[in-house]
Amino acid sequence: MPALKNHKIVLASRPVGEPISDDFRFVEESIAEPGPGEVLLKTLWLSLDPYMRGRMSDAKSYAEPAEIGQVMPGGGVSKVIASNNKAFTVGDIVVGYTGWQAHSKSDGSGLRKIDPTLAPISTALGVLGMPGMTAYTGLLNIGKPQAGETLVVAAASGAVGAIVGQIGKIKGCRVVGIAGGPNKVRYLTEELGFDVGLDHRVPDFADQLRAAVPNGIDIYFENVGGHVWDAVFPLLNRFARVPVCGLIAHYNNVAPPPGPDRTPALMRSVLSNRLTIQGFIVLDFDAQRGDFLRDVGGWLKAGKLKYREDVVHGLEKAPEALIGLLKGRNFGKLLVKVADG
Amino acid sequence: MPALKNHKIVLASRPVGEPISDDFRFVEESIAEPGPGEVLLKTLWLSLDPYMRGRMSDAKSYAEPAEIGQVMPGGGVSKVIASNNKAFTVGDIVVGYTGWQAHSKSDGSGLRKIDPTLAPISTALGVLGMPGMTAYTGLLNIGKPQAGETLVVAAASGAVGAIVGQIGKIKGCRVVGIAGGPNKVRYLTEELGFDVGLDHRVPDFADQLRAAVPNGIDIYFENVGGHVWDAVFPLLNRFARVPVCGLIAHYNNVAPPPGPDRTPALMRSVLSNRLTIQGFIVLDFDAQRGDFLRDVGGWLKAGKLKYREDVVHGLEKAPEALIGLLKGRNFGKLLVKVADG
Repeated sequence: MPALKNHKIVLASRPVGEPISDDFRFVEESIAEPGPGEVLLKTLWLSLDPYMRGRMSDAKSYAEPAEIGQVMPGGGVSKVIASNNKAFTVGDIVVGYTGWQAHSKSDGSGLRKIDPTLAPISTALGVLGMPGMTAYTGLLNIGKPQAGETLVVAAASGAVGAIVGQIGKIKGCRVVGIAGGPNKVRYLTEELGFDVGLDHRVPDFADQLRAAVPNGIDIYFENVGGHVWDAVFPLLNRFARVPVCGLIAHYNNVAPPPGPDRTPALMRSVLSNRLTIQGFIVLDFDAQRGDFLRDVGGWLKAGKLKYREDVVHGLEKAPEALIGLLKGRNFGKLLVKVADG
Repeated sequence: MPALKNHKIVLASRPVGEPISDDFRFVEESIAEPGPGEVLLKTLWLSLDPYMRGRMSDAKSYAEPAEIGQVMPGGGVSKVIASNNKAFTVGDIVVGYTGWQAHSKSDGSGLRKIDPTLAPISTALGVLGMPGMTAYTGLLNIGKPQAGETLVVAAASGAVGAIVGQIGKIKGCRVVGIAGGPNKVRYLTEELGFDVGLDHRVPDFADQLRAAVPNGIDIYFENVGGHVWDAVFPLLNRFARVPVCGLIAHYNNVAPPPGPDRTPALMRSVLSNRLTIQGFIVLDFDAQRGDFLRDVGGWLKAGKLKYREDVVHGLEKAPEALIGLLKGRNFGKLLVKVADG
């Protein structure tokens, strides 16, 4: 097999505030044949997710930052096009953290084969992948939903939030979803079956939220922070649980917001209301992958879970798409279609 | 029996900031004989605790505020001096929320008999009472100490903190206690067996704390808030647990502190370090009273737990003593000796 041309997108510079196009660089290079034990992969789908903003920074976080000049990290669905690894044969469809590139090589570690007859392969990056498992594990382990409780979900039309809210409905909760703009809000109630959808961009959002939760909030699934958190915080009930999954409103912050310092007020509410605020990432619950695939796969098959994909075509579109994601421009799970199967 | 003269201290006005003497009023009145099913109690010991500051305010909290003119709420150890209740006989020693008064009446609900042969009766207000059970349940249920972990305790020479740290040692933790002033700090290591004692009043406290926890902090038992929390926060490890038991540094606050607003930084750390911050009060774990009495009673008997009492003599001294408690002036469990047995 002749050497292939590979296209990849590398981190060119660390963003200050919002990422810009110049923070990414498109690179063309040849990619050699797979070595012993390796597979050569052709990327079909690339997942774009909010956590990528964190990887572009060198601030301490749960994952090592990407290095300047390194391929942008990311999960993808790929096809095996050459294999020196007995565990994989040409034509296999796999999911793994293969990065923002058209081709990649791997020794097989971290790759998981997916069965294309069960569901569209792109779902391995969404409802049946990292975002779906994030929703499932965070809601069940930390949120601990009980029938009759009120669950509020931020970024509710997104890849994680949409699944959180639907699992909340399956568990018998009253579900209030928060999203940006009328189309997303309508989708929450008309398509996903949430009890209420609210637009956090309207001026009286906080009042609308208060009216939407007459019994207060028992679980707040935090994806956002910022003014959404400000509206939620005073409505939290005694013994409320707050799984902290993401804080997209703050990822582009360059300085802390002006005062007063509201940390003491937060801690006083933690004490008097006996709140539980707990951060997590999906890897913390890796042992629950079997449960997740069984339950969410079953609900999907039974028609109890819907999902929506927002597809961008062509690897070169990934930077603008990620910049838009951080501004809430996507509508559903954001994917880049890199190549046809 | 002729009517007795009762002395009590009532809430005269709600404090703005620090309570002052005029927020309390001393009242003398007669107390009638117990009615059917009632007991008449003579208060021997009154407990003074930080939560009382909250009861003086009408801000939303975990307990109803005291009303103006109402006897100040508080736990006490009393002797039954007259009884129309079959469950109690004259001479019984009981513990209950009898308030800041020399005598009280009760229908028996909320009273618990204590055995004066097991331990000094004042311990029913300390190590074997609410503070001890607060320490035990908060540390074990939320802190979840594992051998080899680092536990940091604020207000470590106080009624709760001293027990938290000693249970931490029993569980195999490295224990760092924080207190105010050299005498208390020395007591932590020399008497209680903590690994390190630190004085939060010294200018380089934050640096000393950093040096004292070379492996970071796995559990922070929060009694204080303020600049102690500020020093602890950056040192919290991944998966650290923060039982929030009290925030004495903020109880007298009249306004939020100046900015910047550090809430987003806190929430980002919750996410990236997967912190668990959970508030509690002892009543949340009432079902564990049997475990508490068995374990802490056993450790006390075995000489594994020490305690220290700071005794004020005379009910009329209670207001100044509580004002001092909120400034950290007490050294050990603060008690008012109201009368001899």
